[in-house]
Amino acid sequence: MLAQYQFQSAKKIVAGRHSIEMLASQLQEMGEVRSALILTQPSLIRLGHIDEMVQKLSKAGISSEVLTGVMNEPTVQNIEELGQKLATQDFDVYIAIGGGSVLDAAKILSVLRTNCVPVSELLGTNLVKKPGVRTVLIPTTSGTGSEVTPNAIVTVPEEELKVGIISLYLFPQLVIVDPILTLELPPAVTAATGMDAFTHSIESFISNKANPLSDMFALESMRKISAGIVQAYEHGSSVEARENMLLGSMYGGMALTCAGTAAVHALAYPLGGKFNIPHGVANSMLLPHVMEFNFDAISEKLAQLFPVLGLSASNSLSEVDAARRVIEQIVAWTTTLNIPQDLTAFGVSEDDVLDISKSAMNVTRLLNNNPKAVSIEDVQEIYRKLLP
Amino acid sequence: MLAQYQFQSAKKIVAGRHSIEMLASQLQEMGEVRSALILTQPSLIRLGHIDEMVQKLSKAGISSEVLTGVMNEPTVQNIEELGQKLATQDFDVYIAIGGGSVLDAAKILSVLRTNCVPVSELLGTNLVKKPGVRTVLIPTTSGTGSEVTPNAIVTVPEEELKVGIISLYLFPQLVIVDPILTLELPPAVTAATGMDAFTHSIESFISNKANPLSDMFALESMRKISAGIVQAYEHGSSVEARENMLLGSMYGGMALTCAGTAAVHALAYPLGGKFNIPHGVANSMLLPHVMEFNFDAISEKLAQLFPVLGLSASNSLSEVDAARRVIEQIVAWTTTLNIPQDLTAFGVSEDDVLDISKSAMNVTRLLNNNPKAVSIEDVQEIYRKLLP
Ligand SMILES: NC(=O)c1ccc[n+]([C@@H]2O[C@H](COP(=O)([O-])OP(=O)(O)OC[C@H]3O[C@@H](n4cnc5c(N)ncnc54)[C@H](O)[C@@H]3O)[C@@H](O)[C@H]2O)c1
Ligand SMILES: NC(=O)c1ccc[n+]([C@@H]2O[C@H](COP(=O)([O-])OP(=O)(O)OC[C@H]3O[C@@H](n4cnc5c(N)ncnc54)[C@H](O)[C@@H]3O)[C@@H](O)[C@H]2O)c1
Ligand SMILES: [Fe+2]
Ligand SMILES: [Fe+2]
Repeated sequence: MLAQYQFQSAKKIVAGRHSIEMLASQLQEMGEVRSALILTQPSLIRLGHIDEMVQKLSKAGISSEVLTGVMNEPTVQNIEELGQKLATQDFDVYIAIGGGSVLDAAKILSVLRTNCVPVSELLGTNLVKKPGVRTVLIPTTSGTGSEVTPNAIVTVPEEELKVGIISLYLFPQLVIVDPILTLELPPAVTAATGMDAFTHSIESFISNKANPLSDMFALESMRKISAGIVQAYEHGSSVEARENMLLGSMYGGMALTCAGTAAVHALAYPLGGKFNIPHGVANSMLLPHVMEFNFDAISEKLAQLFPVLGLSASNSLSEVDAARRVIEQIVAWTTTLNIPQDLTAFGVSEDDVLDISKSAMNVTRLLNNNPKAVSIEDVQEIYRKLLP
Repeated sequence: MLAQYQFQSAKKIVAGRHSIEMLASQLQEMGEVRSALILTQPSLIRLGHIDEMVQKLSKAGISSEVLTGVMNEPTVQNIEELGQKLATQDFDVYIAIGGGSVLDAAKILSVLRTNCVPVSELLGTNLVKKPGVRTVLIPTTSGTGSEVTPNAIVTVPEEELKVGIISLYLFPQLVIVDPILTLELPPAVTAATGMDAFTHSIESFISNKANPLSDMFALESMRKISAGIVQAYEHGSSVEARENMLLGSMYGGMALTCAGTAAVHALAYPLGGKFNIPHGVANSMLLPHVMEFNFDAISEKLAQLFPVLGLSASNSLSEVDAARRVIEQIVAWTTTLNIPQDLTAFGVSEDDVLDISKSAMNVTRLLNNNPKAVSIEDVQEIYRKLLP
């Protein structure tokens, strides 16, 4: 437990079913919003959400322009190109509606517009000098919690890594979390992004920087996700399950803002950076193995999660047994949710292990949070568990 | 449960033991802070906290001036007079360190300085037109949660009532919650303010506006307060108990920001406004009786609090029995904490009941949140429970 800790978040959060209806009025309340950039993904356009948004904004006297050029898990170059495009345009607000890829892109583009430096100079902690264009973040995956974190992640192919920009200027003015927008999220994305959210919370909970505030968010996040993930995967139209997942994901973002993620995320970054394995998939593949690696350092904390995950036992369990049951539950989810368990399917082979292990060892920002020191041999061994 | 709900809070929260040490560096991070007004109470000066603060700020190049003129549970007139005093002075930031009285005063003085209207024109919801001087709020009672709410409460003797100013401009830039500052809080104040905090959470939890977000804060608040209140009262020097209370109180403020308080607070306001009964005392006297009045509408929710309050039973309880045990626990605290149970001790008599009941009925903002409709006869009956 850290003796001192901090918390900061989105300026305002509007939540609940159909809360997206409040976008226009909330923008009016923000003041001086006459034009908006809407950054989104093709899937959201296909679902009709964007047309509706443009019309409603227009009725409220707000002109808008839609931009879809953000790739999944955007590279530095992708962001740079979009930044060029926006450099000569003035919008009062950037609205991002989509998964973490779009939310992160909007956060970076917002400060790029005012800071006028290459993205590469912003990579790291507290390197953004000036506040950006105001942002409104509307998540449509229940995964990253990016809507409430000071982080934005970009892929850096040259380094075969994903890298974070961390700055208090990345917090949005407004967040809208509306579970209705997530009803059509495909099962595989529901599973992977949901396990990403769970990973944020469990890593925050066992982090060296864990504290009472991050614990509250982490535990409530795990409660919600445990209650929702299988149902959201199997019956995507369950609003209740979707609401649990979306809130669980947001709380996960609040937890990681306070306490940070750890080795799972550090090891996931090279898998995304070099092999384009979606972030949630990489995390969920790694999660049980990293927890196993950490086991002796975290069994007391894992045991606390036994009731949080909704587990129960007929007779009382020892701490180690309860902790073991928690890991078994995570493994069981991996099976039920059909999370891949084999890195070779993504083109990773034994020959890559040393390289990606070296890359992972560079993510010291996150490895420092891990409750157990991690050597490069440990990292290699963990990756090998996923190479049958 | 409300379908849609909102959340907003202090811009930044710094927490933990000795976090007060971070004041100067946090002010420097805020930018452009060269002068500060320190609003506080004589008790804090006596404890030496203020001298230390002035010196540390001075070392960091920030000049400061100390003002102690805020009375306990300030009246409109008291605030007006302080406002006059400050009207010609320029400070970059107002720092309030003390109980809710000082925090609320600073919040109001901050917007008074920029809005240039009488306090009376600000009473109500969203009547503040412009942002105020930036504020830093440092609670030293574990009670009001004012550091994270958009509310400030003033006493209006003419109306024999306490009235709220509710405005998003009242949120501070920075909150520091340091349990060390609360170690010397006298037992009686610990008890009354602690029960005020508990009341915020339980009223938010049963409020008509309760929602998943407010429930998270309310439940965690009640967990912390239940774990800490008796120990904080009996062994004030227990940092652990004090930390539980201070966090519980802050979470209570977050809960009420989302969901609002209800009939306990409505009935407490005339007792403060007319008879100067300290806010926490008035609430804790009323709490069990109002819960009893609400019982049939809230027994399911009360039953959920059974484990939250740390209660356990050898055999499984019916919902009604569990709910009853929760009320019994609240009554037991009232006894252990020596909360007065007799309004006559404060000069209230049967002759006053109709008058104060009429006043309470005017607090529709809060009565609307109560899960059961309240008639003036109901109110009278509740007050009479406290008149032996
Ligand atoms: N900023 C942070 O704190 C943070 C935390 C974790 C991860 N991340 C980053 O976020 C990115 C991943 O974001 P993600 O996991 O949300 O995935 P994503 O944004 O890449 O989206 C995945 C896919 O889902 C589709 N999609 C999104 N919403 C949909 C909906 N409602 N219905 C149908 N399809 C929908 C998208 O079009 C996309 O094809 C990665 O770059 C990761 O590193 C950031
Ligand atoms: N803004 C809100 O959301 C909100 C919520 C609830 C109540 N309130 C208001 O807050 C006011 C009550 O505040 P309160 O209950 O914190 O009491 P208070 O501020 O009136 O303080 C009570 C007493 O405790 C002393 N004190 C404070 N800190 C101390 C410390 N650390 N050590 C020793 N003595 C200390 C004070 O000097 C004072 O004499 C009321 O006006 C109430 O209506 C506001
Ligand atoms: Fe993640
Ligand atoms: Fe109160």
